[in-house]
Amino acid sequence: MKIFVVNAGSSSLKYQLIDMTDESVLAKGLCERIGVTGAIKHTAADGRVYAAEIPMPTHSEAFEAVVYAMTKSDAKVIDSFDEISAIGHRIVQGGSIFSKSTIITPEALADIDALGELAPLHNPAHVLAIRACIKTFGTEIPQVAVFDTSFHQTMEPKVYMYALPYEYYEKYKVRKYGAHGTSHHFVSQRVLAIEGSQDKKVITCHLGNGCSITAIKDGKCFDTSMGFTPLDGFMMGTRTGTLDPSAVTFIANKENLTPDEMSNICNKKSGVFGISGISNDNRDVAAAAQQGNERAQLAIDMQRYQILKFIGSYIAALGGVDAIAFTGGIGENDAELRAYICDSLAFLGVKCDYEANKVRGKEIKISTDDSKVNVYIIPTNEELAIARDTLALIK
Amino acid sequence: MKIFVVNAGSSSLKYQLIDMTDESVLAKGLCERIGVTGAIKHTAADGRVYAAEIPMPTHSEAFEAVVYAMTKSDAKVIDSFDEISAIGHRIVQGGSIFSKSTIITPEALADIDALGELAPLHNPAHVLAIRACIKTFGTEIPQVAVFDTSFHQTMEPKVYMYALPYEYYEKYKVRKYGAHGTSHHFVSQRVLAIEGSQDKKVITCHLGNGCSITAIKDGKCFDTSMGFTPLDGFMMGTRTGTLDPSAVTFIANKENLTPDEMSNICNKKSGVFGISGISNDNRDVAAAAQQGNERAQLAIDMQRYQILKFIGSYIAALGGVDAIAFTGGIGENDAELRAYICDSLAFLGVKCDYEANKVRGKEIKISTDDSKVNVYIIPTNEELAIARDTLALIK
Repeated sequence: MKIFVVNAGSSSLKYQLIDMTDESVLAKGLCERIGVTGAIKHTAADGRVYAAEIPMPTHSEAFEAVVYAMTKSDAKVIDSFDEISAIGHRIVQGGSIFSKSTIITPEALADIDALGELAPLHNPAHVLAIRACIKTFGTEIPQVAVFDTSFHQTMEPKVYMYALPYEYYEKYKVRKYGAHGTSHHFVSQRVLAIEGSQDKKVITCHLGNGCSITAIKDGKCFDTSMGFTPLDGFMMGTRTGTLDPSAVTFIANKENLTPDEMSNICNKKSGVFGISGISNDNRDVAAAAQQGNERAQLAIDMQRYQILKFIGSYIAALGGVDAIAFTGGIGENDAELRAYICDSLAFLGVKCDYEANKVRGKEIKISTDDSKVNVYIIPTNEELAIARDTLALIK
Repeated sequence: MKIFVVNAGSSSLKYQLIDMTDESVLAKGLCERIGVTGAIKHTAADGRVYAAEIPMPTHSEAFEAVVYAMTKSDAKVIDSFDEISAIGHRIVQGGSIFSKSTIITPEALADIDALGELAPLHNPAHVLAIRACIKTFGTEIPQVAVFDTSFHQTMEPKVYMYALPYEYYEKYKVRKYGAHGTSHHFVSQRVLAIEGSQDKKVITCHLGNGCSITAIKDGKCFDTSMGFTPLDGFMMGTRTGTLDPSAVTFIANKENLTPDEMSNICNKKSGVFGISGISNDNRDVAAAAQQGNERAQLAIDMQRYQILKFIGSYIAALGGVDAIAFTGGIGENDAELRAYICDSLAFLGVKCDYEANKVRGKEIKISTDDSKVNVYIIPTNEELAIARDTLALIK
């Protein structure tokens, strides 16, 4: 039973082929510059690589390149796509419509398209990719949509509503949707499995270039830091996180910016990059801080402090916390950040196991056995989560 | 030793005359519709009232009406303004310039004026009022400026910076300044006096039509919820609090709004009013919720939940909490809100004394003696705080 997992952007196509008998990755790859030029890099599990520049005017040619890479190239891993049981697509925005993963029917595809207004950079690209995927593989192979937002659909209105005039919720569906839901779900399920109970208060911190934190009660999302869009929450690689709306309107006025230009600044020129002036990559910024760069240090200090405050707010929201998990590029690798969080929560009886905390990118408990809260590193695996959901739906 | 305390807006002038020998209020009053028509209502401590409609084209005529009310009307309380030792002015924005109250010199007045860019609705009005006040009372009576922002000037950069491009901090001084500082300072000093130590972690909740929460360490502000402007933080009577910046730009786009129009919506049409559609006054909204109005209930639930999250974030920021204090119209009167906060923090050993919590608007401890955190109602008194600062500076 093999599942093909697709994560398509407007000009890119990331994929994995997963053998669900043992959940192993048979191959993974990336098509880039779709619509511009076109290139594929495909890697088989045993390390064989197929890379080529191929014209990809649309996602269709990209999928055809993937078929070639998978079945005919020097890095082939299957004889035919007939071996594939289903295709799982990552979809950024499921709105209030999709509270779980779904088989892609024409109606579902129309709904995903209609939600493009809430995710203009993502959903239209997903729809293009799905249509190209159907064109390439036909309708015999079932296709499944797995939404970044579904896991967060259990939030209550008091949690997901913004204190804007109610009409904007009615007219435009402006509310908190969250993001990274597949990751938060995957990581929290793993934590609950380790803890041996669903009845735990868990906080999952997905910290990469995009960052979000989720509060989980009884296995369900109670609150999450990303909101109407993935700009909400706290400071990320290039994103501001939440802001005083007056700061937005003040700068737009001063700089004579349109809403789209202002949004672009908040999304792409801000965050760790905007403060440090160096990079959106925490490793570069940490290196500069070590060299004495004050703005680099400020960026790191700000991000850590904001993460701490979100965790604190969710501890209060949950009425306590049993486990905290870190995942994502920063979450899995930044031992200093994790130690800072643990040490700052010492008042709750959190105790860091500093030796265990040195581990990078491996599942491990980083709190001591007598810590009142269990703290973990749990590497996320969104592709596997998508494959599992896909498998469950076609069974 | 009598101090005249002035809180001037662009069209209003609130005042108190305080006898500093016993800190009693001799008279208080309000001039309204300055620049339009003009009216004064003046009340002496013994209940005598003087009210009149008087043309007030500028603040000068308002101050002259106050002099008449104080010294000649049926509600007179002094024979001459010569009895007044000093005048203390509430100033909304002191920027990064004023970390404490200051005697108003021509230089200080120029600085307050220059800060008008950060508080366009307030500082220019303060400057007009101070100039009129000097015109009316001469330069013999010392005048003091007491800033809403001074108490918050102890915040560290990691706390007060927004994750916007750094240039906006350099060019426009966009950062967190906070507000209600006089109140947070007054209330926290009272808490520390009761607790008998400066070395306490205190969270003060100033909850009125405008709302802010402050985290205080060693008597100094560590963090506060209001930011670049008093729109930041959590949901208030008509204000949104912090938002996903994308929600701001999305709505501005959809509704074709200028930054000023969008700012106006976030400041005046949102919050408890915007969600409930009923009122910006929590009492009206609570009454509607009791009648089964769902949006009224939602507004109340949202505001309480957001307050809880801010308190939680500050507990984490401070590394624990020794005391929490409620003040302001909502903070002093809403027993249900206070009980909700205490009950939600039970995981920290907070225990509400529900009997004591029934008290309204009186200084009282509302946590039980075995509560791990002391929770108080502390009625704020910003006028007295201004008078004390004024007295201290002229001594």
